[in-house]
Amino acid sequence: MELLEKYKTVRERSETICSPLKTEDYVVQPVVDVSPPKWHLGHTTWFFETFILQPNVTGYTEFDPQYNFVFNSYYESVGSRVIRTDRGNLSRPSVEEIMQYRRHVDHAMEKWLSKPIPPALEPLLILGLNHEEQHQELLYTDIKYILGHNPLMPPYDRNRATIASNGHPQEWIDMPAGIYDIGYQGNGFCFDNELGRHQVSLGHYAISSTPVSNADFLEFINAGGYTDFRYWHAEGWDWVKTREIKAPLYWYYIDGQWQQYGWQGLQPIKPEDPVCHVSYYEAAAYAAWKGFRLPTEFEWEAAADKFHWGQRWEWTESAYLPYPGFKKAPGAIGEYNGKFMVNQMVLRGASEVTPPDHSRKTYRNFFHPPLRWQFTGIRLAKS
Amino acid sequence: MELLEKYKTVRERSETICSPLKTEDYVVQPVVDVSPPKWHLGHTTWFFETFILQPNVTGYTEFDPQYNFVFNSYYESVGSRVIRTDRGNLSRPSVEEIMQYRRHVDHAMEKWLSKPIPPALEPLLILGLNHEEQHQELLYTDIKYILGHNPLMPPYDRNRATIASNGHPQEWIDMPAGIYDIGYQGNGFCFDNELGRHQVSLGHYAISSTPVSNADFLEFINAGGYTDFRYWHAEGWDWVKTREIKAPLYWYYIDGQWQQYGWQGLQPIKPEDPVCHVSYYEAAAYAAWKGFRLPTEFEWEAAADKFHWGQRWEWTESAYLPYPGFKKAPGAIGEYNGKFMVNQMVLRGASEVTPPDHSRKTYRNFFHPPLRWQFTGIRLAKS
Amino acid sequence: MELLEKYKTVRERSETICSPLKTEDYVVQPVVDVSPPKWHLGHTTWFFETFILQPNVTGYTEFDPQYNFVFNSYYESVGSRVIRTDRGNLSRPSVEEIMQYRRHVDHAMEKWLSKPIPPALEPLLILGLNHEEQHQELLYTDIKYILGHNPLMPPYDRNRATIASNGHPQEWIDMPAGIYDIGYQGNGFCFDNELGRHQVSLGHYAISSTPVSNADFLEFINAGGYTDFRYWHAEGWDWVKTREIKAPLYWYYIDGQWQQYGWQGLQPIKPEDPVCHVSYYEAAAYAAWKGFRLPTEFEWEAAADKFHWGQRWEWTESAYLPYPGFKKAPGAIGEYNGKFMVNQMVLRGASEVTPPDHSRKTYRNFFHPPLRWQFTGIRLAKS
Amino acid sequence: MELLEKYKTVRERSETICSPLKTEDYVVQPVVDVSPPKWHLGHTTWFFETFILQPNVTGYTEFDPQYNFVFNSYYESVGSRVIRTDRGNLSRPSVEEIMQYRRHVDHAMEKWLSKPIPPALEPLLILGLNHEEQHQELLYTDIKYILGHNPLMPPYDRNRATIASNGHPQEWIDMPAGIYDIGYQGNGFCFDNELGRHQVSLGHYAISSTPVSNADFLEFINAGGYTDFRYWHAEGWDWVKTREIKAPLYWYYIDGQWQQYGWQGLQPIKPEDPVCHVSYYEAAAYAAWKGFRLPTEFEWEAAADKFHWGQRWEWTESAYLPYPGFKKAPGAIGEYNGKFMVNQMVLRGASEVTPPDHSRKTYRNFFHPPLRWQFTGIRLAKS
Repeated sequence: MELLEKYKTVRERSETICSPLKTEDYVVQPVVDVSPPKWHLGHTTWFFETFILQPNVTGYTEFDPQYNFVFNSYYESVGSRVIRTDRGNLSRPSVEEIMQYRRHVDHAMEKWLSKPIPPALEPLLILGLNHEEQHQELLYTDIKYILGHNPLMPPYDRNRATIASNGHPQEWIDMPAGIYDIGYQGNGFCFDNELGRHQVSLGHYAISSTPVSNADFLEFINAGGYTDFRYWHAEGWDWVKTREIKAPLYWYYIDGQWQQYGWQGLQPIKPEDPVCHVSYYEAAAYAAWKGFRLPTEFEWEAAADKFHWGQRWEWTESAYLPYPGFKKAPGAIGEYNGKFMVNQMVLRGASEVTPPDHSRKTYRNFFHPPLRWQFTGIRLAKS
Repeated sequence: MELLEKYKTVRERSETICSPLKTEDYVVQPVVDVSPPKWHLGHTTWFFETFILQPNVTGYTEFDPQYNFVFNSYYESVGSRVIRTDRGNLSRPSVEEIMQYRRHVDHAMEKWLSKPIPPALEPLLILGLNHEEQHQELLYTDIKYILGHNPLMPPYDRNRATIASNGHPQEWIDMPAGIYDIGYQGNGFCFDNELGRHQVSLGHYAISSTPVSNADFLEFINAGGYTDFRYWHAEGWDWVKTREIKAPLYWYYIDGQWQQYGWQGLQPIKPEDPVCHVSYYEAAAYAAWKGFRLPTEFEWEAAADKFHWGQRWEWTESAYLPYPGFKKAPGAIGEYNGKFMVNQMVLRGASEVTPPDHSRKTYRNFFHPPLRWQFTGIRLAKS
Repeated sequence: MELLEKYKTVRERSETICSPLKTEDYVVQPVVDVSPPKWHLGHTTWFFETFILQPNVTGYTEFDPQYNFVFNSYYESVGSRVIRTDRGNLSRPSVEEIMQYRRHVDHAMEKWLSKPIPPALEPLLILGLNHEEQHQELLYTDIKYILGHNPLMPPYDRNRATIASNGHPQEWIDMPAGIYDIGYQGNGFCFDNELGRHQVSLGHYAISSTPVSNADFLEFINAGGYTDFRYWHAEGWDWVKTREIKAPLYWYYIDGQWQQYGWQGLQPIKPEDPVCHVSYYEAAAYAAWKGFRLPTEFEWEAAADKFHWGQRWEWTESAYLPYPGFKKAPGAIGEYNGKFMVNQMVLRGASEVTPPDHSRKTYRNFFHPPLRWQFTGIRLAKS
Repeated sequence: MELLEKYKTVRERSETICSPLKTEDYVVQPVVDVSPPKWHLGHTTWFFETFILQPNVTGYTEFDPQYNFVFNSYYESVGSRVIRTDRGNLSRPSVEEIMQYRRHVDHAMEKWLSKPIPPALEPLLILGLNHEEQHQELLYTDIKYILGHNPLMPPYDRNRATIASNGHPQEWIDMPAGIYDIGYQGNGFCFDNELGRHQVSLGHYAISSTPVSNADFLEFINAGGYTDFRYWHAEGWDWVKTREIKAPLYWYYIDGQWQQYGWQGLQPIKPEDPVCHVSYYEAAAYAAWKGFRLPTEFEWEAAADKFHWGQRWEWTESAYLPYPGFKKAPGAIGEYNGKFMVNQMVLRGASEVTPPDHSRKTYRNFFHPPLRWQFTGIRLAKS
């Protein structure tokens, strides 16, 4: 019964996130990294239909055979898929049809969950719920992008405040050299990329107790940080020049004042808030300008119990690679994480839009270095 | 009063065309040439607000000052405009807000038209109505593209038949050499590009009484017309190879049968219907393969009283260039046609989705050679 | 014997044009429109080998069977060809090998021409010579581009003066309305696109006796012509903004002075010289700014005996289209001109680098509207 | 004196590598990753002129002030530079002029080296020589690309054999879990990216004593390895499909036989030779198909004394990241390595074209995952 409640809670939360939207907002895809909200709602449903209901629940009737084609994302082993850049051209299925699809699958799932399920399927169910939680975070980030790139800059929710700083002063947390255990251990859920707990040898280092604030980052901007190649990776510098980057995403300099687009629309920047929506290149350049560096993911994890985290995903200096002994699961589920282990950087922590209880200190998020539409921030380290 | 009735009729027709759509269908822009239906509805309204109500009607209150930015299309003299490729990313203004915009402008226009209007403004009003009629044709072509490129291939209207052939046999209409008058003459409305009536000297020629049919075009396909460079312009041949073109747009070869997407969804091809959705390159290649050629726009116009036309826009062998004495009107209206007079080909006639009474034998339509989403067909000529 | 002398003269002239080059200059292709000089030398030779020697001269031994692949340009019917963008990557065959190729083919051709040749082959020979003359003009334009886009801006020949104005004052030549004969007539050589002499009805017009000068064009620049959309075609305006065009090609504003790259390297602009290296967009915008227009190719030809021409190719307002009755020749030779008859504009006249006696008043040159690396200028007309 | 001899040896070797080239081969740049040989010859010379002669040698006369612009590569702090994609368009300076440049700089350098040099400058000199050695390897790889992508496929040297297998049988070298020291230690030269010797904790693993052979890799091809997404990273799979990759670079399937382009031209593949010219994606996919994995760079270094290496650069599963305590040197030299530490993978070992004594077991080479024009191969590992 607990699984049933958990299922209902997670599923309902996805729709709650979308509740302030107009129908039109569910449809568009302004850049390739963003997916239309209705696609997220369909895709997470497709996961339960494809991997749980169809293979395991006798008598289940597929909602629409064509939906596999529309809502598959990357699962090469489960048939053709709509290429990602085309998602924003799909006016059908309509939002209403997708909601019917959700009702159809939820009905079958809830019926199935009302009785004890085979223990072997529980991990798959939990994976499906965590998968939907990941898409809940993407729903927030993609909705912010869609509304924030509309020339009318409509608010998402006039009553939703942006995240506030916790007010703690910045300190350096000293960490001794030593051998640290890294990776997930325990009985709860974790993703496959967290497994393979292993020892990592770290030298003596210190890590900041607080993330970099807007005020901190403004100093970098005002000091000409975006115009001095010395702080940048070569490809970061190309990115800055080619795309004419001058500030974090959603920042606008209007009438002599820095403003940012947020849940309430355009608002003046709050200096004390942690800086958000920066790329890995910007995070690394800021650290270099300041004379420090980003922590590795191992340094971050080893020290994570000693500082507050959770408002921003924090870029680390670690590339996303398999832990020792990493093994792909067989079949389509095996495509989950391993195939992305090249050319991405690890982020640790959680953001203001990460679902409650979804993250943990061993959680490995990952994105390509130039991306900024996630709620990404900066924590400094030094040796 | 006649103008008021005309205004109401035209404005209502735009909304009728959209009536089978779902809200989501109004939003998307699958390729750069297609505009979202809601953009057409807003843009045509913006025309009346910007060029008639704001400069001429005392006391008119602009609906929303930001709409100028969103709904301007190409009018460089009327402020910044949303670049064309971004239109499909605009979830706001919503369809409902655009309908309110239409109500707001219609209310003011109808009030203004309920009394005699200054004679000097009548041409501008008529231009606005013809402008909306042009966008009505684009609404049809863009809606067909949006639905026809959705993997679900939803019908637009299951009861709407595709156009049928008129059943007349093909004949060659013989036209003597001579001097012919070309261009509009009369008191009715015409576009600026039809003016400058002038004499054109034509040699002896013949023009077909009927357009090329699906059956005719299938012969070209089956004879390998798409794989033999000899029939193609050099850039047409590049287009065929690069884009792997093998048939007209919306044609699909499924289970040994040619089908096409139309108003009722996917349907078998009717051999006797006039071929549709071909590019200039395909039209010219077909003519070359057949040993004939396309008519010039002058040959077409000189003979237009002698054959039926109106189901398909017909590609001519004429580039879109100014007639002798062509003058741009001053101001933004002057941007209407002249600035497109390079690198496009003239089409003559009208299509099944051209509004009633909108076309005439001097009407000059124009598109770039590779485009196929209009209802374009082929008529042959020979010397 | 006359043909033999003509052959020798033409062939030698190609090599003379290249004589100031270093070996490295023969190799590069800085943009797709430019071909490496060594490619021109090989391609013109390949023409004689492929179309004359191989099919017609018994005992001729092909120089190298792989050269067909390397030196074919657009002739789809004569086997695969190196795609145009790859030409600049071909370090082999070397310049020396290509010169040996020329010697080999010249030896066979000269032997063949030392006796009377079959009359049926004479047109093909003449075509080959005119073809090489066309490439001689391209050799000049491409060499200028290669050297003029090198950061060292080396001169081609320090002793070669740029073309000077003839000093005649500007006058309007009045041309009465009437029927004019257009197209080539006579016994000399002409290209297939000039044939089909036919009557064109022209209204009353006037055409300038002189081309637009650098001083004239500077007025346009100084008056903000490049920053006012009203004078430009829509796609011309996009071109200006996207490519940040601010002056003709090869013009540089250095230390408060306009200079241009020419045969002698960088030199101050001579105000009285005819403006050169402008695109069709710039020519049309200049004319629009001045309140005039470009002549059609028919107006140009009808008046050509009344003014001096030949320093610059002159953009006309005519698209490159077939004359009435135009027929492609059968076989590969038929690919010569017809397949380019879309999306290009006609230029009339000749330039300072057109071979002597190569042009005539019926000659139809053609290029795409944005291209500027040819020696292109402007002559105005008015109605 | 020893430094003088070393200088002469290194400098002479660069020119020896180029000696089989024709002048034209020095000029071209078929893809952005390849530089023209003459650019390498100029750039390595510019390094000595800019960083040693100009700041440190009184009375030295710069060869040509414009060369800084032409031969700077990535050093943002030393003035503007020719963007990389333009290098192949530079016919000037000519090869002869660059050879004069080399003579000029060598003359000054040799004079300077004939007396004792300030000890503080010795590291910079040694860096310059190692820099030139790196470009010697690039000269080989770029020359192979230039000749191997010419349709005539000319040999580089008909007498130069491709590398042969050493004939040792494949074995698994067992490595115990433990703490290993990683990074350079000693008094010799190393690059900054090897410094920061530190401890790495490794689990128990085994590494192959031999690289993967052509015969091994053919099994992967024949088993459909290139057509089964399960073995590939997501972006590797996109790369395979988009670029239609079916075999290593330079492999051609001709008349039922696999051949490869090598120093002697096109030759049948030798099954026992180590496979070469594979991307990281291919290396990782091969390992996955085989049920193994690539070693990390730490596993490689820890075991390097136990196997033969040096014929192929070996892809590791490690991203190119700074070692703990990595510090950029100040000034332009500081740009050497650090700014490339994102989105590249580490390769260890050396190749058949690495200069003698240039590599060592701590050497960290790095390239982007899809690149194949280096002499890259595969060594397997397992846990």
